[in-house]
Amino acid sequence: MRQAGRYLEEYRKIRAKHSLLEICRTPEIAVEVTLQPVRRFGFDAAILFSDLLVPLEPLGIPFSFAPGEGPSIEAPIRSRRDVEGLRKVVPEESLAFTLEAIRLLRRELAVPLIGFAGAPFTLASYAIEGGPSKSFEKTKALMYEDPETWHLLLSKLASTVRDYLTAQIEAGVAAVQLFDSWVGALAPEDYRNMVLPHSRAILEPLSKLGVPRIHFGTGTAGILREMREAGGDVIGLDWRIDLDRGWEELGEGVAVQGNLDPHLLFAPRDVLCERVDSILRQAAGRPGHVFNLGHGILPGTPVESVQILVDRVHRHRPPSR
Amino acid sequence: MRQAGRYLEEYRKIRAKHSLLEICRTPEIAVEVTLQPVRRFGFDAAILFSDLLVPLEPLGIPFSFAPGEGPSIEAPIRSRRDVEGLRKVVPEESLAFTLEAIRLLRRELAVPLIGFAGAPFTLASYAIEGGPSKSFEKTKALMYEDPETWHLLLSKLASTVRDYLTAQIEAGVAAVQLFDSWVGALAPEDYRNMVLPHSRAILEPLSKLGVPRIHFGTGTAGILREMREAGGDVIGLDWRIDLDRGWEELGEGVAVQGNLDPHLLFAPRDVLCERVDSILRQAAGRPGHVFNLGHGILPGTPVESVQILVDRVHRHRPPSR
Repeated sequence: MRQAGRYLEEYRKIRAKHSLLEICRTPEIAVEVTLQPVRRFGFDAAILFSDLLVPLEPLGIPFSFAPGEGPSIEAPIRSRRDVEGLRKVVPEESLAFTLEAIRLLRRELAVPLIGFAGAPFTLASYAIEGGPSKSFEKTKALMYEDPETWHLLLSKLASTVRDYLTAQIEAGVAAVQLFDSWVGALAPEDYRNMVLPHSRAILEPLSKLGVPRIHFGTGTAGILREMREAGGDVIGLDWRIDLDRGWEELGEGVAVQGNLDPHLLFAPRDVLCERVDSILRQAAGRPGHVFNLGHGILPGTPVESVQILVDRVHRHRPPSR
Repeated sequence: MRQAGRYLEEYRKIRAKHSLLEICRTPEIAVEVTLQPVRRFGFDAAILFSDLLVPLEPLGIPFSFAPGEGPSIEAPIRSRRDVEGLRKVVPEESLAFTLEAIRLLRRELAVPLIGFAGAPFTLASYAIEGGPSKSFEKTKALMYEDPETWHLLLSKLASTVRDYLTAQIEAGVAAVQLFDSWVGALAPEDYRNMVLPHSRAILEPLSKLGVPRIHFGTGTAGILREMREAGGDVIGLDWRIDLDRGWEELGEGVAVQGNLDPHLLFAPRDVLCERVDSILRQAAGRPGHVFNLGHGILPGTPVESVQILVDRVHRHRPPSR
């Protein structure tokens, strides 16, 4: 999950001077913001500070963030023609700022760096809805009414993301995470037919590049087997399923990431610690658990709670280095 | 699910003259609105037209609906004192309008009538947040910080709902549905400790009253076993898990309701029919499937699609009367 954010004073200071997209597109600032939480808390890994939507602009889908609002796509994708007009993205050109930030971070960081990108469904949902959505009405309408256009859009997004993550690996990230944040809105049948092949088209070729691939979504308790089929060495779980039950559903031979409800960082210390312990107990004896929140850290999170969490996890399992 | 709504012209005509709460609180209008979709589509059962929040006002939690907005609670519940101040609800007095609507409907309806109420967690979430919420931040904060107040609130809500559903059964409904619409926001551990005992305190005593109890939630793929443990003869599934996998998770000896994504009513006829067939295939050979949407019908739903859906289901399974 994103580690930096408004809950950190040092981040708010930078945000007072720079927009979210300025941070993402200016390697030195992206580096500083990536480092902030690692310095403060002693995390075992860093995740590149960026935004899921960054590849949309070079694809030909410009967007902006209004202050205090979610993203807003200038001209949402609605037709075959819109999809046909999308451009091919060469990450080394139009996303060079990300790759430069990665190269700078490799020099600065003492812990592994995780690269990331949005998955085709989640990117498509923003591109089609025009911004955040609760029910994904327009996205599903396009998917049901015009499956050919849908598949063309998702395959273009998939090849963009595959190239983007490949370039991130070449620039030096130690792992990659594919964020399909909103895929839990789908029925399993739609996931299998309309999404899985496109996520697989990203994850499969990356398997040869020698870094772990984390495949994350939320609200996915009903499609975990399908997410595994799409690929990934690690499957991310949100908090809506017990970690051990999620692992049982996924089967052998795959690691899991998760799965603390980020709201527990607002709970009293003993409640928080008890839940951290419970997750670690469920993971005990199994190989391949990445302790993490089940979704992004909330803006009002008390900083002390994050430190309590990190210390509690470290008490159980010494850092692997 | 609610059958009437803005997608129906005849409903919009009534809404132009009466607010949502006026409809709920005026038996003759509630009856008319309950009958409208049954007349039009030939459903196999009717669900009483009402609103989840109706019992909050007599409890001492007044609210209103701003036009085009969700509900707004005047003084959200935040403290032990707020909870201690709640009143005991006698449904025959302060919710008599619902019971009268049921008695009138029994005379008018040729199909069974389903009564309903909101479950303690979902009611508490509105009472605490003050309205609809995406993340239930305040609800979870109270649950973690002050579990005693939480349990007091939920037990008061549970006894209110138990009495309300008992009164509905005595007034003549043929089944009851407990709506825990937002319970899917919780981690299974929180559901087990903080919610399950209260939902059970409603469902268990109702088992002696001789009518089927439907227990419904959304986003519940990770807590289906727990929901079964809480009780119900029928467990409602939303569309985020395959019906057969959900049933497997629930185990033998319980019926299921569901589970078409309401967005499929916006899809072309052949896509819609194929998905209806798929659900009925998954239910084939098992006893106790109630075909239904996975959640409420969306405001812009094309009326023709609802008729296509009903006819398709009836083609597979002749009405039981």
